[in-house]
Amino acid sequence: MSSAIGKMPAVAVSSPAASGQHILKNSRRENFPGWYREVIDAAKLAEDSIVPGCMVILPLGVEVWNQVKAQFGEMLRRGKCSHDYQFPLFIPSSLFAQEAEHVAGFAKECAVVTHHRMMVDGSGKMVPDPTAKLDEPLIVRPTSETIIGESFRGWIRSKKDLPRLVNQWCNVIRMERATRPFLRTTEFFWQEGHCAFATEPEGRANALKMAQAYETFMTQVCALPVILGEKSPGERFAGAVQTFTLEAMMQDGKAVQSGTSHYLGDNFARASHIQFTDGDGEKKYAHTTSWGISTRLIGSMIMTHSDDNGLRLPPRIAPVHVVIIPSGSGAKADKKAIRDAYIPRVEALFAGQRFEDREISIELDDRDEKELNAGEKGWDALKKGTPIRIEIGPREAQRETVTISRRDKDLSEKVEVPITDIASYVIFALGEIQQTYFRQALAYREALTRTDILTPEAMRAYFADPANIGFVRGKWCGDKSTEETFKDLSVTIRCLPLDQSGTNGICILTGRPATIDAIFGRSY
Amino acid sequence: MSSAIGKMPAVAVSSPAASGQHILKNSRRENFPGWYREVIDAAKLAEDSIVPGCMVILPLGVEVWNQVKAQFGEMLRRGKCSHDYQFPLFIPSSLFAQEAEHVAGFAKECAVVTHHRMMVDGSGKMVPDPTAKLDEPLIVRPTSETIIGESFRGWIRSKKDLPRLVNQWCNVIRMERATRPFLRTTEFFWQEGHCAFATEPEGRANALKMAQAYETFMTQVCALPVILGEKSPGERFAGAVQTFTLEAMMQDGKAVQSGTSHYLGDNFARASHIQFTDGDGEKKYAHTTSWGISTRLIGSMIMTHSDDNGLRLPPRIAPVHVVIIPSGSGAKADKKAIRDAYIPRVEALFAGQRFEDREISIELDDRDEKELNAGEKGWDALKKGTPIRIEIGPREAQRETVTISRRDKDLSEKVEVPITDIASYVIFALGEIQQTYFRQALAYREALTRTDILTPEAMRAYFADPANIGFVRGKWCGDKSTEETFKDLSVTIRCLPLDQSGTNGICILTGRPATIDAIFGRSY
Repeated sequence: MSSAIGKMPAVAVSSPAASGQHILKNSRRENFPGWYREVIDAAKLAEDSIVPGCMVILPLGVEVWNQVKAQFGEMLRRGKCSHDYQFPLFIPSSLFAQEAEHVAGFAKECAVVTHHRMMVDGSGKMVPDPTAKLDEPLIVRPTSETIIGESFRGWIRSKKDLPRLVNQWCNVIRMERATRPFLRTTEFFWQEGHCAFATEPEGRANALKMAQAYETFMTQVCALPVILGEKSPGERFAGAVQTFTLEAMMQDGKAVQSGTSHYLGDNFARASHIQFTDGDGEKKYAHTTSWGISTRLIGSMIMTHSDDNGLRLPPRIAPVHVVIIPSGSGAKADKKAIRDAYIPRVEALFAGQRFEDREISIELDDRDEKELNAGEKGWDALKKGTPIRIEIGPREAQRETVTISRRDKDLSEKVEVPITDIASYVIFALGEIQQTYFRQALAYREALTRTDILTPEAMRAYFADPANIGFVRGKWCGDKSTEETFKDLSVTIRCLPLDQSGTNGICILTGRPATIDAIFGRSY
Repeated sequence: MSSAIGKMPAVAVSSPAASGQHILKNSRRENFPGWYREVIDAAKLAEDSIVPGCMVILPLGVEVWNQVKAQFGEMLRRGKCSHDYQFPLFIPSSLFAQEAEHVAGFAKECAVVTHHRMMVDGSGKMVPDPTAKLDEPLIVRPTSETIIGESFRGWIRSKKDLPRLVNQWCNVIRMERATRPFLRTTEFFWQEGHCAFATEPEGRANALKMAQAYETFMTQVCALPVILGEKSPGERFAGAVQTFTLEAMMQDGKAVQSGTSHYLGDNFARASHIQFTDGDGEKKYAHTTSWGISTRLIGSMIMTHSDDNGLRLPPRIAPVHVVIIPSGSGAKADKKAIRDAYIPRVEALFAGQRFEDREISIELDDRDEKELNAGEKGWDALKKGTPIRIEIGPREAQRETVTISRRDKDLSEKVEVPITDIASYVIFALGEIQQTYFRQALAYREALTRTDILTPEAMRAYFADPANIGFVRGKWCGDKSTEETFKDLSVTIRCLPLDQSGTNGICILTGRPATIDAIFGRSY
């Protein structure tokens, strides 16, 4: 894979990794999966748990997710997209079974609760009590269309009960075999929106609107240059009529579906009997949508932005914008004076200062110097992806300055800034970092997207070489039966971008005439 | 029960219910459980789901819980009490079985996952796939001591790894038979803190400190006059050495344990092998604590503060402080002018205004007048417990005033306030309402607490009369075997208040000499 990563465009290589030096043991180039794990370990985002496929999410990981919740939640509120509810974790299996395709899609990997009591058996072992078997097994929700549909059925009677705009932030369970922290885990956290409308156009418009809301959030807040597109039939959500997706390219060239929005037609309405009496007195089925983003988005951000020194967090999503690190040698009394007077003075200069929608978040790393010196604190902040590090020592105190390092710049690049300018300097730098991460990721994706592959033969030859990674943007004839043509190479249709050229060409799966633009690639 | 509620002290009877009129069908006096349900229905806090014992929490319920999370979460951060983590929903049954008392306490009512796949059987029914049985059953967490203990075991090696201060906000499952919305449900939401310390005094101090943090939060933010006390041995958490509780009295005289904090000794550390090497080189077990508040607290607030007109929310916890209701008759053009110009002008006067730690939250009820007129909107806000209602119509616009009603005052009491004074008037009123709710609840509890019952005979005679509700504060000898003396009357020791008199007396369970002050009563 090294030659492929060698194609990384210059703009993306801003970190010391470019010169062969890096803090992490693994590099993206040499061992991408190992690097990903090490970024997560070094940043203390999450760790494995004793439960197969489940993580323990550590404070930084929880805080990043809380930022997603707070900021996307605010978008939902402001946009009057939905209200927050909490539906049960358990779904009775009969309810779950209502929608045939849905069952087929999820029954294979669901956690089933069958008993309501444990007991100690003859050998002293804890076992489910056979006398405490549930009448009906309960499914731990893998998604909530069916249980929310059941509420819709009760709530919706006439046209004036529509639209219903529901959202919940919750945990879901999918008993998958192969897992990877954040990207695919047995338990994950998400937001799931579920809406019901009177007509198909309203339903379709809602699915698109929410996909666009994700696009805005991911590009502007997460600095992810996602491609908004439609899923081909073979890649659609189980039970959906139309699925929108936000596809992001990771630094190993693979795609991550970072969010989805589905128009479900009246499939779930028919299954759940969600009917209303229309103005004309007729009973009609509602048209429903569902849309979600999950902790997988954190995986996308890690694999998109991080470098061989560890995590890089876009400032708008970073829980802490600025870490202050006391530094420099000197007498104990001088150090105390700096901590008691100069540092608080610097901190006070940020009071009420904002970057985008949030107050600037500052953290003083006041861990005992004997346990962790200033240099080590710097490495720690670097690995945690904190956008800005401020060092303050006797020299700075004397000169009324601070020394600033930025996570988007070379390790050796430090700037001394007079404290009179500090707030405006930091706000400006945060904006630059945010944009730099986005631009680097976009340039990287463009450099790894081929648009000059025009035939099935060229397509096979390209992906047959494992050094060739990334996306191919080419034509597809739209025939569902052709989707798995390159399944042997793990290459599939990632999406049909909404941004279509309208040109004619040749389907690179079949060689037939084709007009649809499609993104092909490997995926997580 | 009517005669008992007749003892309600005058101060608590500020609502129109006092004069026999009320909006709800049920009254506290006539049908307390029915009234509780109706308050929840009328406020749209939650409703039953298809899953036995599980609620659907509706937007107002979610928002109230979000206030608890935001405000108590902020207390935890400011107090450096803990960091937020997320641990797995599932606990392997072998891990769960480690602590004997704990198992005994929770195994009886836990949800057990035994399969990872469903299938359709011969008769077309969805059943757990017998070929997809888990090697080890998984327990859906009823509480997380064991799974967090497993992480502690890995994290803690030497004394410098202590203390570890962990918290998580999550859902938990207890398969209880009898449920009641918010107070006792199969699934509920909570915050569970888990801390590990090097020594017993640190552990005990932490359990007390967190109980005191709850006391502060409940009295100041939730307006609940809770009694902070210790649980007697029979009422302790399964596996705890010492349990602190926050006991609140509901308007039917029963106690609700609204929060708890446990010192677990080294019981869980021994079970989970949480050991550290001390300064003296010796291997020692850590001392752990756990502490939690849950959505049950919402149940406490409803049953403490609400009246026969519906919910009353303490302003500090109310998601919306002020609802603005367009009112009055007039030409369509005038109404439009009021909505487009005067109401926005009033709203702008609240910009940046704060009540306690939050910005004043205003909501305009702009639902179509034809569907819901101003009067009905007023009833709706009343039933939802919104602290302040502001009516604005042509009269107000012309006189540059608004008409204000308060949830703590009589329905007929309305005040016209010039808009120049509106923000200060509202901030002052919110403070008064907050204090009024607390004072009323405290006065009610004091009126329903007997301190003159001095013998077992008097005790039995008192509680044998079903008209006698509330608490008895009296002496207890401290003998664990006596705790269930009045179990036939459902009367138990609610707590041993920290505020002890130190006087000598006679145990009202046994007649023996006793010094401990205890609170006796019925409970949820």
